[in-house]
Amino acid sequence: MSLLQATRKSYTVAFQGELGAYSQRAIYAYFGKNKVKQVLPLPTFKQVFESLFSSLEGGSGKPEYAVVPIENSLAGSVGETLDLLLVSNVKITGEVEIPIRHSLMVHTDSSIADIKRVISHPQAIAQCSDYLNSKHWEQIPVYDTAGAAKMIRDENLKDTAAIACELAAEIYGLKVVEEGIEDDPSNVTRFVVIEPKSNTDEKLGDCDPNEMPKPGVNYKTSLLFVTRHVPGSLVGALSALSSRGINLTKIESRPIKKKPWEYYFYVDFEGHIKDVRCKDAIKELKERTVELKILGSYERKT
Amino acid sequence: MSLLQATRKSYTVAFQGELGAYSQRAIYAYFGKNKVKQVLPLPTFKQVFESLFSSLEGGSGKPEYAVVPIENSLAGSVGETLDLLLVSNVKITGEVEIPIRHSLMVHTDSSIADIKRVISHPQAIAQCSDYLNSKHWEQIPVYDTAGAAKMIRDENLKDTAAIACELAAEIYGLKVVEEGIEDDPSNVTRFVVIEPKSNTDEKLGDCDPNEMPKPGVNYKTSLLFVTRHVPGSLVGALSALSSRGINLTKIESRPIKKKPWEYYFYVDFEGHIKDVRCKDAIKELKERTVELKILGSYERKT
Repeated sequence: MSLLQATRKSYTVAFQGELGAYSQRAIYAYFGKNKVKQVLPLPTFKQVFESLFSSLEGGSGKPEYAVVPIENSLAGSVGETLDLLLVSNVKITGEVEIPIRHSLMVHTDSSIADIKRVISHPQAIAQCSDYLNSKHWEQIPVYDTAGAAKMIRDENLKDTAAIACELAAEIYGLKVVEEGIEDDPSNVTRFVVIEPKSNTDEKLGDCDPNEMPKPGVNYKTSLLFVTRHVPGSLVGALSALSSRGINLTKIESRPIKKKPWEYYFYVDFEGHIKDVRCKDAIKELKERTVELKILGSYERKT
Repeated sequence: MSLLQATRKSYTVAFQGELGAYSQRAIYAYFGKNKVKQVLPLPTFKQVFESLFSSLEGGSGKPEYAVVPIENSLAGSVGETLDLLLVSNVKITGEVEIPIRHSLMVHTDSSIADIKRVISHPQAIAQCSDYLNSKHWEQIPVYDTAGAAKMIRDENLKDTAAIACELAAEIYGLKVVEEGIEDDPSNVTRFVVIEPKSNTDEKLGDCDPNEMPKPGVNYKTSLLFVTRHVPGSLVGALSALSSRGINLTKIESRPIKKKPWEYYFYVDFEGHIKDVRCKDAIKELKERTVELKILGSYERKT
């Protein structure tokens, strides 16, 4: 082992879905495949968030990070991720964007002429409707794109194709017969990298004191807030940012559980929480909201 | 036939899903069951919007209205509805709110003791997890709550229960064995009533000249806009409302198709488009946005 390899850290990273999911591609794209010791596929987003805090049954150990989708350029925000960010003691430490390129894959004994039906997540089927409308295959929705690929292997299906990430073909030993069959090539998903907050983070405004912004790097800060229920309260809150020329890159309203038609807001803006301008803006934002949770500052990729 | 019945209009109303869906309940709640000549279940939201403009195959005639879910108090906005409001030539003419009360239903020959598995839409299964965790039934996701009820009838399933609206039990001749099995009783869905815009609407600021606001009625106005891509543009747009004390009841950002990470905004606020205050606000909003589409003013129910 070279000195470089010995000093290189490698991580266990959790994600939602089956092995071969687009989230796994996002993990490799963000960390580099050689820095990932293990990926940990979990059935639900809730389990992914919880895995960061308690060792799982089977003794696979706690993952250091999780990578979860936050937004798709066609479908919009992933509400479940936003809601879990609100209630979990995690911080966002990075982001990564993955183009969603759907591949059509079959059993290695089969070819495109053998296909009688196609299985995938309904959203993936919908995203390939131009391509699929030119075929006469039965379309059967299942609960996961990579799960569809897994079904072909596990059940030895020779007349069925799956629509999934090409990584799924690699993992389940299938043959890709068409690539990029999505109608809209501008289909992109943005993922965030999360890890547990440390106590230090809490004391110092949710940000590690040793992690000062690096010069030349573009940062983004994410936070959540709840405003008072009076006219103009959202404009008042946002003006804490706009009056300082801080650029909002995303705003999303989400319902507050058990309070029908009350909302919290998720906001991304340009800048690092330790920039003077952002620090001042957050101070004002705290005064203008009834609840404020800072999720973190991290290098901007989109 | 009495004079009252003779003068009463009745309508054909389209909705997404199978007969017995929560949307059908919303239709009856809004129009009154006796004013609904026919409900028209369609597989996709896109087909529901399109049905308002072209007669369907089979000659069932064009529906006068459609009722579509716009927001759930737990899951948030229905992105597909918002995106279709953006691209379709429709106006919103009403809203209605329905509590989502899930019922457990079985074949009339069966009882709760016969249940080995339960089928429903995965969201409904998730919303009943407390109840289901106390049972040892296999949980199988299918694509529609009412569709699950239909499957029990069509396939004569005697060991399977469906989770759906009690209306589905009525329609498919099933027996309700438990009511209100959802974990969170504050689960509410808001639906909007849509109809095609007339040419008159277009000329007169998207509002029928004969439909002046009635005194004593609380109105809501819905619109969509796109802002310039500069810091503070959203605050600038919203201040057209807040500076006049107009209360925002909902704001939602949605991705613009083919333009990753650019957004349009959907906004609901209190007041009628023909109120002087709202008229002025919309005039200012037009100047502060690059695109503005007024969806309509209608009686506020929530």
